[in-house]
Amino acid sequence: MASTNVSLTELAKGARNASNALASASTASKDAALERMAELLLRHESILLEANAKDLAQGQAQGLTDALLDRLTLTPARIREMAEALREIIALSDPVGEISEMNVQPNGLQVGRMRIPLGVILMIYEARPNVTCDAAALCLKSGNAVILRGGSEALHANQAIAGLWQLALKESGLPEASVQLVPTTDRAAIDELLQLHEYIDLVIPRGGEGLIRRVVERSKIPVIQHYKGVCHLYVDEGADLGMAEKLTLNSKVQRPSVCNALETLLVHQAVAPAFLPRVVATLHKAGVSVRGCEQTRRVVPDVAPASEADWSEEYLNLTLSVKVVTDMNQAIAHIQRYGSLHTETIVTESFSNAQAFLRLVNSSCVLVNASTRFNDGSQLGLGAEIGISTSKLHAFGPMGLRQLTTQKFIVLGQGQIRS
Amino acid sequence: MASTNVSLTELAKGARNASNALASASTASKDAALERMAELLLRHESILLEANAKDLAQGQAQGLTDALLDRLTLTPARIREMAEALREIIALSDPVGEISEMNVQPNGLQVGRMRIPLGVILMIYEARPNVTCDAAALCLKSGNAVILRGGSEALHANQAIAGLWQLALKESGLPEASVQLVPTTDRAAIDELLQLHEYIDLVIPRGGEGLIRRVVERSKIPVIQHYKGVCHLYVDEGADLGMAEKLTLNSKVQRPSVCNALETLLVHQAVAPAFLPRVVATLHKAGVSVRGCEQTRRVVPDVAPASEADWSEEYLNLTLSVKVVTDMNQAIAHIQRYGSLHTETIVTESFSNAQAFLRLVNSSCVLVNASTRFNDGSQLGLGAEIGISTSKLHAFGPMGLRQLTTQKFIVLGQGQIRS
Repeated sequence: MASTNVSLTELAKGARNASNALASASTASKDAALERMAELLLRHESILLEANAKDLAQGQAQGLTDALLDRLTLTPARIREMAEALREIIALSDPVGEISEMNVQPNGLQVGRMRIPLGVILMIYEARPNVTCDAAALCLKSGNAVILRGGSEALHANQAIAGLWQLALKESGLPEASVQLVPTTDRAAIDELLQLHEYIDLVIPRGGEGLIRRVVERSKIPVIQHYKGVCHLYVDEGADLGMAEKLTLNSKVQRPSVCNALETLLVHQAVAPAFLPRVVATLHKAGVSVRGCEQTRRVVPDVAPASEADWSEEYLNLTLSVKVVTDMNQAIAHIQRYGSLHTETIVTESFSNAQAFLRLVNSSCVLVNASTRFNDGSQLGLGAEIGISTSKLHAFGPMGLRQLTTQKFIVLGQGQIRS
Repeated sequence: MASTNVSLTELAKGARNASNALASASTASKDAALERMAELLLRHESILLEANAKDLAQGQAQGLTDALLDRLTLTPARIREMAEALREIIALSDPVGEISEMNVQPNGLQVGRMRIPLGVILMIYEARPNVTCDAAALCLKSGNAVILRGGSEALHANQAIAGLWQLALKESGLPEASVQLVPTTDRAAIDELLQLHEYIDLVIPRGGEGLIRRVVERSKIPVIQHYKGVCHLYVDEGADLGMAEKLTLNSKVQRPSVCNALETLLVHQAVAPAFLPRVVATLHKAGVSVRGCEQTRRVVPDVAPASEADWSEEYLNLTLSVKVVTDMNQAIAHIQRYGSLHTETIVTESFSNAQAFLRLVNSSCVLVNASTRFNDGSQLGLGAEIGISTSKLHAFGPMGLRQLTTQKFIVLGQGQIRS
């Protein structure tokens, strides 16, 4: 790991040099490093637990919430999960070198695209120490060098994990600077790194909205943004109401604390009288607190009133806002006004409405007759994900290995010149 | 066109609203606006020439160079070319709505991607008034609203062209704010626009390196960078020397002032004695001034010495630097050190070396046995291009209609929930 005497510019230059070597590293050597890391995690469990104990003691002294302490905690089971996650990444196919869209131009030139790594990725994240393992593994497998800047709460565990990365890389013959932990959790260090656009190609901040906005405001390097998920489910006229009820419940309660959980239910006025009483009863039974528009409350009086602020709210808990709309167009207008480009579902039996919803709603994932909870890299077939982008540039939606690469043009000729 | 009283924020908000409508506009209506614009250009030739005459008079008074005045000049022939360029864009297929990678997950969900516009694009460019027509047309066809900020030298012509856009859009039923010219050429206006990341999705600066660096330094919006093209051609051991000579000449002299023209020739030491005398003679005959490394000058004494600065130089004129290298690895190391990630060619008969060069050189376009001049949207089969990106994020290399879009995930279910 870099000593604190090394300047951040030197650290970033080291990452750039490592990325040049990594770009042409074989899949076998990258997988060997990942496998070695999995073994080291399991073998050095006690080192990780000891480092984590220091973080936890410090966190308790600082009065961190139970939820934060839980996210910070490593256990033998969680360390096994980290090792398993590495082996899942080994099993994914390497996107680097993939050739596609190979066509022949009229002059005989074969023109195609070859996938290559982005270069150097800066990950900025908060409490979870497993990111130091997972995110680094995804960057490494896709041929990118990574600079990790974790939260101060997890510093000791992060340093221990980064130390194991150094060993794993060295033993596999890959540059040790392929994975580097920023040796300070000083906020000024982030600001300094965000200026280094000559050495760093992409910044991925993972955490609260405040962190992400701060990074976007200050960065001279492109940032993949993942703001909040204000996700909608719209129940269309003529929808299968049993399916709509099941999808509403799953979207809201299966894991309410995550970004692809449902926050607002939109109901066509024609089905509101039949649908609202049953879905609200089911939601109440599941412990969901419901806030409705005036029309909703006319049908189901035992629902709290929703305020204007509710429509933009990412509750991340067992709260749901409900609004009756005159038709699909009003539902789409509501999503455009209050949504966060994350995940939206329509429940419908109408082919035309399904087609129109898919076309008109431009969120990162648009679903027909399926739970919002499917907007997730592994559920969509990408394998492990490094985050879900809600910015349209480069990647929109879950980002897997392929989204950590770009494509160059390749041209095979027989001596062609331009006239 | 927006009046100067309208704030830039209002202008950007207007573009955002227009982009929402444009995203679902039919290909027919977008093509109708482009055809109408082509007709208006031809019909109002005299208005454009009058406006241009004002710019030219002002430019002459300010002592602009002949080269700059030439780029600024509109003629009936150039106006016809602008109209023809619009019709070429009409002929290209619309990328919006294209569905790809549709797969079925084990739970029966169909998961694919649908292409959608980026949203709002800010073009910042210098003297050429035709960009006000071409760039806007590419943005419009790909469903994006565009904010145009042209150079002060071309203000009158740009205003006249933007006025025709307003007419064409209105007559085709598309929002007039789809194409807007910034009503001031004040530099502070650029800085203000570069802060508006809530309304603008992408900035494309076209012009000198100074302009691009200034935009990157100040922008909170992602920027597609197109820095200089220091392009290389490497002649391998065992290359067909006749082909190498022809490709060197074409890459250098066919149009020396553009970014994909050759700047540095690298020659394997084994072929240097046979190749250098003939290629230098040919280059001299074509008016090229050659600057060589020491080894080059030992073989061909009538060549000027190259300095260290020559290896990073984008001459953009009839000058070429030449270096003898020990092998392909040294050539690649030279390209990594001095290149600009733009365009590199290998001339070789070795299958293994061609494969290695394609894999190891990560420039936006890597060619085997073909002229560097082919790194161009129309030559690579993309149709018209809005620029050539040398930054890896989002788009790398020539950017056509497709590179002005992104992909959202679409999911078609039958009531699936996540367990």
